[in-house]
Amino acid sequence: MTQDAAYERSMRRALDLAGNGPATGVNPRVGCVILGADGETLAEGWHRGAGTSHAEVDALAKLPAGAARGATAVVTLEPCNHTGRTGPCSVALLDAGIGRVVYAVADPGEHSSGGAERLRAAGVAVQGGVLAEEATVFLADWLFAAGLGRPFVTVKWASSLDGRAAAADGTSQWITGPEARQDVHRRRAQADAILVGTGTVLADDPALTARDADGALLAGQPVPVILGTRPIPAGSAVLAHPQVPLFFDGGDIGSVLRALHERGIRRAFVEGGPTLASAFVAAGLVDEYLIYLAPTLIGGGRLALGDIGVSSVAEQRRLAIDHIDRLGEDILVVARPRERNDHVHRNH
Amino acid sequence: MTQDAAYERSMRRALDLAGNGPATGVNPRVGCVILGADGETLAEGWHRGAGTSHAEVDALAKLPAGAARGATAVVTLEPCNHTGRTGPCSVALLDAGIGRVVYAVADPGEHSSGGAERLRAAGVAVQGGVLAEEATVFLADWLFAAGLGRPFVTVKWASSLDGRAAAADGTSQWITGPEARQDVHRRRAQADAILVGTGTVLADDPALTARDADGALLAGQPVPVILGTRPIPAGSAVLAHPQVPLFFDGGDIGSVLRALHERGIRRAFVEGGPTLASAFVAAGLVDEYLIYLAPTLIGGGRLALGDIGVSSVAEQRRLAIDHIDRLGEDILVVARPRERNDHVHRNH
Repeated sequence: MTQDAAYERSMRRALDLAGNGPATGVNPRVGCVILGADGETLAEGWHRGAGTSHAEVDALAKLPAGAARGATAVVTLEPCNHTGRTGPCSVALLDAGIGRVVYAVADPGEHSSGGAERLRAAGVAVQGGVLAEEATVFLADWLFAAGLGRPFVTVKWASSLDGRAAAADGTSQWITGPEARQDVHRRRAQADAILVGTGTVLADDPALTARDADGALLAGQPVPVILGTRPIPAGSAVLAHPQVPLFFDGGDIGSVLRALHERGIRRAFVEGGPTLASAFVAAGLVDEYLIYLAPTLIGGGRLALGDIGVSSVAEQRRLAIDHIDRLGEDILVVARPRERNDHVHRNH
Repeated sequence: MTQDAAYERSMRRALDLAGNGPATGVNPRVGCVILGADGETLAEGWHRGAGTSHAEVDALAKLPAGAARGATAVVTLEPCNHTGRTGPCSVALLDAGIGRVVYAVADPGEHSSGGAERLRAAGVAVQGGVLAEEATVFLADWLFAAGLGRPFVTVKWASSLDGRAAAADGTSQWITGPEARQDVHRRRAQADAILVGTGTVLADDPALTARDADGALLAGQPVPVILGTRPIPAGSAVLAHPQVPLFFDGGDIGSVLRALHERGIRRAFVEGGPTLASAFVAAGLVDEYLIYLAPTLIGGGRLALGDIGVSSVAEQRRLAIDHIDRLGEDILVVARPRERNDHVHRNH
């Protein structure tokens, strides 16, 4: 096996280790493998979430003092150069005497990047870009949020095949089937925040929890974020959510997203209703679409998406379909804005 | 091979032969195989369209006089008992001395049914229902039209994922891509008539011809049928259609369909626009839906489907999805009304 192939094999293992970490939260999921002089694995580590050791430190901690001297650290993300609740990994690697660092993806963070430079300046051999594509896909939403200073935004709606979210009298239970609704809960649990407009709270009184098919709470519970100026009743179900809800007037979605980012929210799940979804689409602030289409026709005026500022077909918002799933009788279309999709493919 | 298996094998061949006939027109596609005493094939035939020999007569004509005496005729549809432009097949089979008739599907026609009874009364062994399911699927639209006295109605529309057929200014070229548009032309060519409202003629001035990717006319050209009360301009493209257009005021869709059936139209393709499509859906007169969904969002008020008389979600028009295709970047959903679908499965 060539040296490059050996690094790729260890990087693939490091990505597996990274997958042990939590999908939500401020910090990325990172894995690390420490290799000895003959390519043997000395230690493995991964990051378990904000406030705990970073992957490199987790791996180094498993070795006796001096055992990592001259060793190679294979890590899925460029070692950080930032002192937060833990010290910079670049310094920890230097202190341990690591001789070479191989990483997949550069850290795009304003405060945390620069680790590779610091290591090189201290005489460590540094090689980036190993399995970069796989690691980029794995970290897509986190990298995105880190680069733009706002959460990765998923907008979800469910409609009939003719684009209606409810019948004329407002009834909407049920348009999609149980499989589609369970899929929504599963995806909610992977977000840091779930955003709804006050109109949806007033109309549907949703709990906004992520639940399994039996109604039991899932392990991950996104923070409910309620946008709008209308007051909501004291007995609203969302006020009993295990996470304390956040309220914004919602006038400037961009500033709401920046505020959420400052609070550590990296994945925002926009659930409804049509007014909020349309505002996100119109503002160009959607990174991923989850469109659940039920095999039914409803007609009338209660549309899943309202006006999005398109006056001519030349201005239509073209999407790139990632994939199409059948969920029971329903269809799930997962798509991204075409511009965004091109961007991801071009820059990473 | 058992006798039943041998008949099924011959019936499958007869269905293949039937497929040589034209998909459009008043008459069904029928195939026939004549078997000798040892199960050997003596002759084959199929129907080539109104005014030509029926399948049984086509097969018998290939045999010398007397050669079919005592033979078995395997035919995909119950031999007709009707004198139209040609004589009844039941009589032709009797005249030829056929000893046994095996068929797949009973003839549901008011005037043409009764062939099996006539044959049995004359002492011929008659066995129906061989490969009935395959033959029923093969003849679905014809059987349907024969049973209900109106054409089989396909309603097609193309929209964005949010159900819009055009942008606010009325522009709609293009929402779907070339593959989807070509698919529409291919399916147009398999219909007897193409129905549009005067609103669509006035707005889009469509030629309503079935064309290939290079714009050349396909072999089949459905009769353009224009519904509505508004006059259309003398220079409208549809007036240059190779088939003479028919005009109806469109007030009563049911009576329009009966009138088309009387003119020999068995497959009606409803193309637009939203007003006409909505009227068909509201009237419960759709047998098949072709919904082309483009990966784009448009918003605003120009919907592919308008009001269909659904006021509560309990009244939604549930569909059964036959299949979902990708056509270039677009999605084609082929579906049927759930009631109709259940009906087909129950009764055939």
